[in-house]
Amino acid sequence: MELLKQRILKDGKVKEGNILKVDSFLKHQMDIRLLEAVGEEFARRFSDQKITKILTIEASGIGIAAIAAQYFDYVPVIFAKKTRSKNLDGVLLTSEVSSFTKGITYQIQVEKQFLVPEDNVLIIDDFLAKGQALLGLSDIVGQAGAALAGCGIVIEKGFQEGGKMIREKGIRLESLAVISSISDQTITFRE
Amino acid sequence: MELLKQRILKDGKVKEGNILKVDSFLKHQMDIRLLEAVGEEFARRFSDQKITKILTIEASGIGIAAIAAQYFDYVPVIFAKKTRSKNLDGVLLTSEVSSFTKGITYQIQVEKQFLVPEDNVLIIDDFLAKGQALLGLSDIVGQAGAALAGCGIVIEKGFQEGGKMIREKGIRLESLAVISSISDQTITFRE
Repeated sequence: MELLKQRILKDGKVKEGNILKVDSFLKHQMDIRLLEAVGEEFARRFSDQKITKILTIEASGIGIAAIAAQYFDYVPVIFAKKTRSKNLDGVLLTSEVSSFTKGITYQIQVEKQFLVPEDNVLIIDDFLAKGQALLGLSDIVGQAGAALAGCGIVIEKGFQEGGKMIREKGIRLESLAVISSISDQTITFRE
Repeated sequence: MELLKQRILKDGKVKEGNILKVDSFLKHQMDIRLLEAVGEEFARRFSDQKITKILTIEASGIGIAAIAAQYFDYVPVIFAKKTRSKNLDGVLLTSEVSSFTKGITYQIQVEKQFLVPEDNVLIIDDFLAKGQALLGLSDIVGQAGAALAGCGIVIEKGFQEGGKMIREKGIRLESLAVISSISDQTITFRE
């Protein structure tokens, strides 16, 4: 997605350790027109699928998924929670997610009532690196007995193993920008 | 906002202790058409203001704020974070927020670069009860030297003191549904 790549090159910041920050338009601050273009592109790529629910994970996925739903016939958007809340009192579907960057394992939760076997679910998230969050979300879709249409990712870090691992599991993965390398302040995309 | 009140009566669930749950359309699962109507109503109520940024707080505020921005000329949406992330590495504006329900105090954070003195900020959130999150957000707007246009709330628990406290501080508060009481499974709205 050319518009997205250009925006990453223009406004993305490469920090020490070759960390890419897109806080000014995708994460901490969101450019809603860009999110509309992202949602429209997800809809184009998954136009062969009849999506019935969009599943994401708090927090950065929520805005992306909410706008994307406007291009998927306004299907309901569900976000998995990372912490157990007393507001979650129904039967829960849960999965363990390892965060390598944070060095912890946490449990993600979705109320069972919101995913049913008749659903065809699109998972949406902002970043894909090691792929652990996607694995957890796809595990929850499986526990619900629902079909997983695929995963829509805004930025895939192609130099980490998550994308390969997810694709090898037979999960359809559509990443709008795949970064092949970051070095010396230079961001290179995979064609 | 009649559409919202009807939806609360239809799909809201009153749990033990007279807790209102709106997880099926506003929080855990989101109805994006309803959020469009909510965003449009916020825009109508704040039509006398030239809003330049929308500020919300993770997680449930994000979807509401993202959709609302479409009715505010696509101003940037910023969400305050509740936990310190290593992705937040700029200068931070912070404020302490007491959560009575959770019995803890946490720090909310916004990167300083995203709020400037020229901004006229609309704060958006899903619920208003004790008003502590709104106080923290308005404190951050003040620290940035920006103007606070007001607060747009989807559901105000009118039987708790937050709304009164916020209004007494001279902060403009627009709540789309104000609940005056919940008892015996009956939800009553303030006219």
